[in-house]
Amino acid sequence: MSLYLHDIPLREAAARLEAALEAANLWRVLGTESIPLNEDGLGRVLAEPIWAKISSPHYHASAMDGFAVRSAATNGAMPSVPLSLEIGRGAEYVDTGDPLPEWADAVIPIENVEALDGRGEIAGDIRKPGAIRIRAAVAPWSHVRPLGEDIVATQLVLPAGHILRAVDLGAIAAAGYDRVPVARKPRVAILPTGTELVPLGSRPKPGDILEYNSLVLAAQIKSMGGEPSRFPITKDDFDLICARVQEAAQDHDLILLNAGSSAGAEDFSAKVVETLGTLAVHGVAVRPGHPVILGMVQPGAGPGKAASQKATPIIGVPGYPVSAALTIEIFVEPLMARWLGRRLRELPVETAQLTRKINSPAGDEDYVRVAVGRVGDRLLAAPLARGAGVITSLVQADGLVILPPGIQGVEAGEDVQVHLYRSKAELERTIFCIGSHDLTLDLLAQFLAPQDRRLVSANVGSQGGLVALRRAEAHLAGSHLFDPQTGEFNIPAIRQYMPELPVKVVALVRREQGLLVQRGNPKGIRSLGDLGRSEVRFVNRQRGAGTRVLLDYHLNLMGISPAMIQGYNEEEYTHLGVAAAVVSGRADCGLGIAAAAQALELDFIPLFQERYDLIVPKKYADSELLAPVFGLLDSSAFREAVSKMKGYDVSVMGTVILEDK
Amino acid sequence: MSLYLHDIPLREAAARLEAALEAANLWRVLGTESIPLNEDGLGRVLAEPIWAKISSPHYHASAMDGFAVRSAATNGAMPSVPLSLEIGRGAEYVDTGDPLPEWADAVIPIENVEALDGRGEIAGDIRKPGAIRIRAAVAPWSHVRPLGEDIVATQLVLPAGHILRAVDLGAIAAAGYDRVPVARKPRVAILPTGTELVPLGSRPKPGDILEYNSLVLAAQIKSMGGEPSRFPITKDDFDLICARVQEAAQDHDLILLNAGSSAGAEDFSAKVVETLGTLAVHGVAVRPGHPVILGMVQPGAGPGKAASQKATPIIGVPGYPVSAALTIEIFVEPLMARWLGRRLRELPVETAQLTRKINSPAGDEDYVRVAVGRVGDRLLAAPLARGAGVITSLVQADGLVILPPGIQGVEAGEDVQVHLYRSKAELERTIFCIGSHDLTLDLLAQFLAPQDRRLVSANVGSQGGLVALRRAEAHLAGSHLFDPQTGEFNIPAIRQYMPELPVKVVALVRREQGLLVQRGNPKGIRSLGDLGRSEVRFVNRQRGAGTRVLLDYHLNLMGISPAMIQGYNEEEYTHLGVAAAVVSGRADCGLGIAAAAQALELDFIPLFQERYDLIVPKKYADSELLAPVFGLLDSSAFREAVSKMKGYDVSVMGTVILEDK
Repeated sequence: MSLYLHDIPLREAAARLEAALEAANLWRVLGTESIPLNEDGLGRVLAEPIWAKISSPHYHASAMDGFAVRSAATNGAMPSVPLSLEIGRGAEYVDTGDPLPEWADAVIPIENVEALDGRGEIAGDIRKPGAIRIRAAVAPWSHVRPLGEDIVATQLVLPAGHILRAVDLGAIAAAGYDRVPVARKPRVAILPTGTELVPLGSRPKPGDILEYNSLVLAAQIKSMGGEPSRFPITKDDFDLICARVQEAAQDHDLILLNAGSSAGAEDFSAKVVETLGTLAVHGVAVRPGHPVILGMVQPGAGPGKAASQKATPIIGVPGYPVSAALTIEIFVEPLMARWLGRRLRELPVETAQLTRKINSPAGDEDYVRVAVGRVGDRLLAAPLARGAGVITSLVQADGLVILPPGIQGVEAGEDVQVHLYRSKAELERTIFCIGSHDLTLDLLAQFLAPQDRRLVSANVGSQGGLVALRRAEAHLAGSHLFDPQTGEFNIPAIRQYMPELPVKVVALVRREQGLLVQRGNPKGIRSLGDLGRSEVRFVNRQRGAGTRVLLDYHLNLMGISPAMIQGYNEEEYTHLGVAAAVVSGRADCGLGIAAAAQALELDFIPLFQERYDLIVPKKYADSELLAPVFGLLDSSAFREAVSKMKGYDVSVMGTVILEDK
Repeated sequence: MSLYLHDIPLREAAARLEAALEAANLWRVLGTESIPLNEDGLGRVLAEPIWAKISSPHYHASAMDGFAVRSAATNGAMPSVPLSLEIGRGAEYVDTGDPLPEWADAVIPIENVEALDGRGEIAGDIRKPGAIRIRAAVAPWSHVRPLGEDIVATQLVLPAGHILRAVDLGAIAAAGYDRVPVARKPRVAILPTGTELVPLGSRPKPGDILEYNSLVLAAQIKSMGGEPSRFPITKDDFDLICARVQEAAQDHDLILLNAGSSAGAEDFSAKVVETLGTLAVHGVAVRPGHPVILGMVQPGAGPGKAASQKATPIIGVPGYPVSAALTIEIFVEPLMARWLGRRLRELPVETAQLTRKINSPAGDEDYVRVAVGRVGDRLLAAPLARGAGVITSLVQADGLVILPPGIQGVEAGEDVQVHLYRSKAELERTIFCIGSHDLTLDLLAQFLAPQDRRLVSANVGSQGGLVALRRAEAHLAGSHLFDPQTGEFNIPAIRQYMPELPVKVVALVRREQGLLVQRGNPKGIRSLGDLGRSEVRFVNRQRGAGTRVLLDYHLNLMGISPAMIQGYNEEEYTHLGVAAAVVSGRADCGLGIAAAAQALELDFIPLFQERYDLIVPKKYADSELLAPVFGLLDSSAFREAVSKMKGYDVSVMGTVILEDK
């Protein structure tokens, strides 16, 4: 085993996999099965073209309730020259769908006749008259659905490779089928390996990792049209993993061996593939996800055993969840498309303007997750967290920007092509909120969802939010910027950072700021004065955060120099980030809001009250997009939900602090 | 029962249904169930917001294979000033994902250290050295995934109403869940009624109708997230239908009563609803689909019985398949969205140019199915068959144009908004073929599908195809226009109809034209001369069809006047249409190709040979879009498939007849 992977370009890796499958005669539709024609056929892929067995309608059918007639016999009928046709001798009642009598070639709708009884009077039952009187001639084949109007026997109804929708099932039925030939579902074995893995439902200890990759992989396979089977967790043991792979190879079309695909001390995947078959690729120049393994295994093979005939493709899937999910999209989707005989799934692509610079490794195909929304006239793409371990970056992603090898990055403001996960209609209902973080925004997102609004928050601090508004990169910003000169919140900063932009400022909450300390407050921290103590480790918020401004103001008042504070340069971007640092012991305390302390069960030492406002450019203040936000500020359900969090005062909620003309 | 429906506007009908559900306290999410967190959760709708129970990672984790260190202890290390750290006393080996030791605050990746043995020499096993030598300092928290990097306990992971995707399942698992609360699936009973209905797999007699609406409805319900149950066919009998509805109301959230929703002799639906509950709407101003019934039934209710408490909504769904499917989209999708607490499914909307005039009833909301493709710079929408019985119009539809009440039609060339069923990428790979019909085009469509091309053919006759090319409304046209003056096919007509357009003309096939007659040729038809016989009924092709040109040429040669031919004015648009007319007895004979006779098992009297060409404007002749078409003309598999049809000679296939500069 080598310590370093040799990454090869994505295109070459895919070509090697394809070649290995070609060689094993597996680069084709795996097989066909005939299934009953019912709603379970939805989403299955036609394995053969459907040629109509029968016509539809398969006879000349009346298209209306009315009377079948010979069109020639109606000639001459006019409003002033009525004409009578006797039932049984030139006219016959038919319901919609009834076959036309052989002698007839047209139908007169019931509402266009006068029904007569035997004596020439208006009949009691319009459907059972003795004769009908008409006042207009009818053309041949009027109100008749001729044989084959919909489908003519032998015509192509649907081509092979078509993915069945509801109406397709109906058309196949109309064409005379009660079973349908579809591609059989590829069977995919998912093998989670790792001594550190624990099943869902466990209470994980430090070092334990909840095993959920197999869940995501199985769901991906299912949504691609395959049949996943999840195996139990296998420990990091070469022989155990070999045995599992051999077991899976017996009756699966593809094996996904999850984690152990890199070159670490307990990464056995490459060796397993080499031992049981052929390693085609170890390492692909793609981020995230480069430690990918592609190969073929043969179930009989193994130390000292001869290989049996059948080869099964195996993919060593990286362990980080984002890498794992992208590996499936990149390498497995084309395989599934081929095996099912369907088109590749494609995401729609739109051009958007990047809000922040992306740096990219020059040699790699770089998959950047972005949030996307329309602000004013522009579609914006905001890069999300890049870490391969951050599965929420995939959950929050509205799309992917794929930077090919050779590109080292893209500057803020440049156009990028985004492969969109969401419809444009959803993006039109996306509210971009950038600025200071507050837990109330999570609640706001939850309350907005049923009103068909998606709130996407980026936490860049209060000042960052104002900058984003000035750059027209957000619909609103949350801010709690204290101004030491005036004692006011937000207004002076708004005038300073965006003097030209008319805004509406609405109070969201008053909230407590204070010190988050470990439970029981073991270091006896009481005030900012304690931050100077040598045994106290502090964790700070980033520059530009309102909380940082507040801290610096008070430190200055108290004459405490930042240089005296251990951890002053440790920056977190959210209140919860600060709380997490304290919970984990990375720090003894941090300045933040009470709700964050409550969330992570920390002690809280209240110090100040502050107002947190929403700042909205005037042009969005009356928009339909934001109307539900203002509606919620007036809603008692929302106020009540916020009140339940510790340290929040909702009495100011909805108060207009400032409204420019 | 009234004879006529009273159609009300769509909006009002929907409002009445909503009001009835509000009154029954059913305009809400029906219920929540907790399901195990596995791949079956895909597509389910979150009934509650997911707040993180635990953080992820839930400890500080090493992000690399390497050595955990105290960052402060690395200060001063430089390329020229190496620094050693002893294992167990300032450095410790960690794999990716291992918890950071409490004393450490950073990780140095394994590839950035020199591993030393006890004597200060390079160690044999880089992962088990006695000490490490480093040549650079590391910042605190380098290569560490801090607690909460992905998810912080208590944060909002996903809002209620979210439709679960694969990555969402992973994020929910990472947040500490092994079950997930989702909206329970609405249970929908589908009741097919009609004495004329026969189940799939039957060999239908004239007047029988294959019952496949319940299949389409069930599949629609399933794809909307509901749980359909299909009931057996019930005859047109008031009491039987009442009993079925009462049975279904016991344990379903919605009843779809299919057909009998109009006001015909055997249309009982409205009376059933009135008897068992309340009829809210009978007739909606929407085409196709106006005989829609909306109401509420109560299971206990019935003739002479008191109603029990629970009310169940019931929809009387029209019998024509297109009407039925659209009724579900229009009335049931909003209901399902509400019951599941999810957003309404929406189709993307694009602007396209209409190729043909649409006439629309002024009072109705008119749903027009269209084929959509890009020809040159323009997205074109070609209206499909309008009949409510033509389910293939839904299968072939790439989108819907919805004309609101008050609009009586749209002219050809005007822009319309199309609600698209297909992705733009698919539309970009759509080949519009307009012109003469030939069965070879069906085969071509089938052979093109695996090459990711969709062939959409419109049959407007050879001349119509040339007109469409001139108007830039198609990528190619099939044509077999015989020129009496020169004896040539197509070239003179091309020069006449589109003198300015440079084209490439490629032969597709030579084929036989002749008379299609009933099996056994009971009328003893031998040649065109027999068409003048008074007992022979003919069926013609439409004006502009190549076959019609051929007929008229030979009739003229033979001195037979069209006026002498019964049925000369009966026009069909395809060879198969002509064959169907003969099979059904509507006509005794028609002029057409051998393949059509073979398809419907008719006798065929060969008369002439003709050449059928593909005419392609030069600008598409070398396009990537059409390359697979030309490829197939050279493929032996395609030639063989065409040869198998009777009356085709493929020796000319692919021959370039003309290529303009």
